Amino acid sequence: MSMTLSPIPQSLAEARALDAADPLSDARSHFSLPEGVIYLDGHSLGPVTHAALARLDRGARSDWGENLVRSWNNAGWIDLPARMGARIARLIGVAEDEVLVCDSVSVNLFKLAASALEVTPRRLLMAESGEFPTDQYIVEGLAEAVRAESARIEPAALEAALQQGGVLIKSVVNYRTGALADIGALEAVAREGGARIVWDLSHAAGVLDLRLGERGAVLASGCGYKYLNGGPGAPAFVYVSRSLANQLCTPIRGWFGHVDAFAFQEEYTPLSGVGRFAAGTPPILSCLALDGALDVFDGVDPGLLGAKARALGGLFLDRAARLGLAIGSPRDPMRRGGHVAILHQEGYAIIQALIARGIIGDFRAPDAMRFGFSPLFLRYEDVWCAFDALQEVLDRESFRDPRFALRAKVT
Amino acid sequence: MSMTLSPIPQSLAEARALDAADPLSDARSHFSLPEGVIYLDGHSLGPVTHAALARLDRGARSDWGENLVRSWNNAGWIDLPARMGARIARLIGVAEDEVLVCDSVSVNLFKLAASALEVTPRRLLMAESGEFPTDQYIVEGLAEAVRAESARIEPAALEAALQQGGVLIKSVVNYRTGALADIGALEAVAREGGARIVWDLSHAAGVLDLRLGERGAVLASGCGYKYLNGGPGAPAFVYVSRSLANQLCTPIRGWFGHVDAFAFQEEYTPLSGVGRFAAGTPPILSCLALDGALDVFDGVDPGLLGAKARALGGLFLDRAARLGLAIGSPRDPMRRGGHVAILHQEGYAIIQALIARGIIGDFRAPDAMRFGFSPLFLRYEDVWCAFDALQEVLDRESFRDPRFALRAKVT
Repeated sequence: MSMTLSPIPQSLAEARALDAADPLSDARSHFSLPEGVIYLDGHSLGPVTHAALARLDRGARSDWGENLVRSWNNAGWIDLPARMGARIARLIGVAEDEVLVCDSVSVNLFKLAASALEVTPRRLLMAESGEFPTDQYIVEGLAEAVRAESARIEPAALEAALQQGGVLIKSVVNYRTGALADIGALEAVAREGGARIVWDLSHAAGVLDLRLGERGAVLASGCGYKYLNGGPGAPAFVYVSRSLANQLCTPIRGWFGHVDAFAFQEEYTPLSGVGRFAAGTPPILSCLALDGALDVFDGVDPGLLGAKARALGGLFLDRAARLGLAIGSPRDPMRRGGHVAILHQEGYAIIQALIARGIIGDFRAPDAMRFGFSPLFLRYEDVWCAFDALQEVLDRESFRDPRFALRAKVT
Repeated sequence: MSMTLSPIPQSLAEARALDAADPLSDARSHFSLPEGVIYLDGHSLGPVTHAALARLDRGARSDWGENLVRSWNNAGWIDLPARMGARIARLIGVAEDEVLVCDSVSVNLFKLAASALEVTPRRLLMAESGEFPTDQYIVEGLAEAVRAESARIEPAALEAALQQGGVLIKSVVNYRTGALADIGALEAVAREGGARIVWDLSHAAGVLDLRLGERGAVLASGCGYKYLNGGPGAPAFVYVSRSLANQLCTPIRGWFGHVDAFAFQEEYTPLSGVGRFAAGTPPILSCLALDGALDVFDGVDPGLLGAKARALGGLFLDRAARLGLAIGSPRDPMRRGGHVAILHQEGYAIIQALIARGIIGDFRAPDAMRFGFSPLFLRYEDVWCAFDALQEVLDRESFRDPRFALRAKVT
C-alpha cells in the first residue's frame, strides 16, 4: 500500500500550514462542536453533525409524529438499514449490497461467528488475548451454547491457529494500542486452512481506507457511534461477502431477515445476501441520526481519512517521544489506526486534568491514555494545542489534584 | 380476576358521556396527534408524546452535542436501560430490578430461550402454530444452532406439550386475533413438567394489567414501540425473575452484561440478575425517546389501561356484530388484549379506504383488519366515529376504488 503522509509539523505555525492545505478542512463546519473543547475521543463517541440533528428532528416530529406508521413506507424506514449499509460499504471498500445496518457489534459478532462455524472444517471459536472483551466473551458464550470449542490465542500463534480452520473474531484496530492487523495476510492464511475471520471494525470504520473486498475479508461488523459519528449506541453494521452470504444462516432468525417480512409466513425463507442477517425491528430514531451523520462522508476519499488520522497521530506521538513518554502504540503509521495510547501510571488522573481543560481523551486500565484523531473535525492546530496541554499537565503535575482521582462509572 | 367494564355505549352521546367520566382522559393531552386522524394502530407503532420529543431533543443537542462522551456518566446513559426497566416493571407487575431495556424482541427471545434451554429437562424448543413469525423463526434457528429439537405445537396440544418439559415461546396476546393467553394456567402446567415459558409481551405491555409475577411468569420480552409509544423500532425489554436470573447465562455475552464493563477484564463475570442479559452498547437516542414516552404512564394504574382498552374494543366489536361482520377476535373482553380483528376478503382495500379518511388501522394477510385501542390517547368518541367511517366505507363500497388495491411494502 503506498501513501504519502504529511511531514510532521514542528511548530504551531507548521501545524496551521498543514490545516490550510488540508483537503478535508471543509468537513469541520458540518459538526456541532462545543466551545473550548478539543475532542480527542471520536474513537469512543463521535460528535454530532448538523445533518444528524436535522435528520433526527425531522424523523421524530414529522415522520413519526405526523405520519406515524405510514412512514415505514412513505419515509422509507423499511429500507433504511440497507440504504445506510450501501453508504458504509463505500467507506470499507465492499459492494453496496454487502452491508446492512443492524443490532450492536456484540450481537452481530455472535450472528456472524455462529454462521461461519457451519462453513469451516473445525468447530473451534477463537479470539486473541488482549482483544476487546466483548470479542472474547462472545466467542466463549457462543462456544458454550453451540457445544463448540473455544480458544484464546496469543498474537504470535495466530497464523498457526488459522491454518487449522475454525472461526476467529479479530479487531482490525486494537482498542487499546491502536495496532492495525494485516487483513490481507491473515485472510491468506485463513483461506489455506479453511478458517473464517470475523473482523471487528469498531475502531477502524470511518477512519481508515479498509478495502476489505480487495484484501479478501468476507465477514465483518463495525460500530456506528465511533468514527462514523452516529450518536451514542448508534446501530452497528454487518458486512457479508456476496460470495458467502447465501451459504450462511443466522442463528437469530428475526422477521426482518425474512424474504417477505410482511407476508407473515410460518416458514422462514431468508433474504438473499446480507439482508438475512437482520433480526428484529431496527431502532429507527438511532438509525436516522446515523444516516444524517453519514452525510459528511459523502464524496470523501477513504484514503484521505486514513492519511490525515495517521498524520495527526504522528504529530502527537512525535511530541510524546521527544518528551520521553511511554508510547503504547506502533510508531509506524501504517501499522496503526486512528488512535494512539500513551502509557502512564497516573493516566486516569492525567486524563481528568486534561478534561478539566477542555481536552477530551479517555483512559483504559491499567495505564493507557487514549487519544483519537478523527480526521473530519480535528485540525493539526487542535492536536498541537492538545499536546501543549498534556505537556503542561505533566510539567506542573496538576493531575495530582485529588478531584482527578475520583473514578466515574464509565472511564 | 375481577374487573368492572363500562357499559357498551349505544350512541355518540353515550360514548361522549363515557369520555367525560374517563379517569384516563387527561393523558391524551400528553400526545402530539396529527389533526384529522383517528389512530387505531397503536398496537403497531404508538404515537409520539411531547415528553418523548423533549427528551430526545435534549439528549441529542445537549447530552450528545455539548457534553459528548461525558454523558455516559453525567447524563446517566449508563444506567438508563435499568432505570427504564424499573419503570416498565411496574406496568407488567414484577419487581423493579427484574426488567432491563435492551436489543429487539427477536434478539431477546433468542437470548431467553437459549438460556432457559439449559434449565429444563428436555432439549426441545416450541412455538405455537399461528404465533407471530419471529417467535417461530427464533425457535427453529436457535434449535438448529444449538442442536436441540424444535416443534410447532397446535394450540389444543399446548398443555400436554408443556407437561414434558422444554422451552415454549408464546405471545401473551396473539398478534392477529388479539386472543389473550391464560398466563397463570400455562405456568402451572409448565411448572409440573419443568418446562419454561418465554412470554412475548409485544402486543400486551402497556395495555393490560399483566401481573406477571403473581401469575408465575419468570421470563418475558416485550416491545417498546407499540403500546409503550417509544418510537419506531424502540428498544425492547427483558424480564427475568430474580428467582431464576442467576442460574441463567445469556449465549450473547456482550460487555454491557459484564459486572464491571469498564474494567475491560478478559474473564467474563456476568452482572447479578437481569442485567446479565445486556449485550452491546444500547442505542441511547432511541432509548431516550422511550424513556420520555414512559412519562405518560407515571402513576397510571395498569388495571385502568386494560379496562379501557377492552371497553373501546368492545364498543367496536359490538357495532361490528350488529352489522354482521366476521369477527376474528374473542368476544369475551377478558379473553382478549388491546386490539381486535375484523375479517373481510377486501380487508386490505378497506383499510386503505379508511386511511384515506384519516382512520388508521392495519391489515394482516389474508383477511384480518386490525384495530388497536390504545387507552391513553383514544376516546370513546373516536372509536364511535371510526366505526361510523368503517360502516360508510362498507355501505358505499368505496374500498373498490382501484387506488386502494396497490400494496405497499409494509402493510
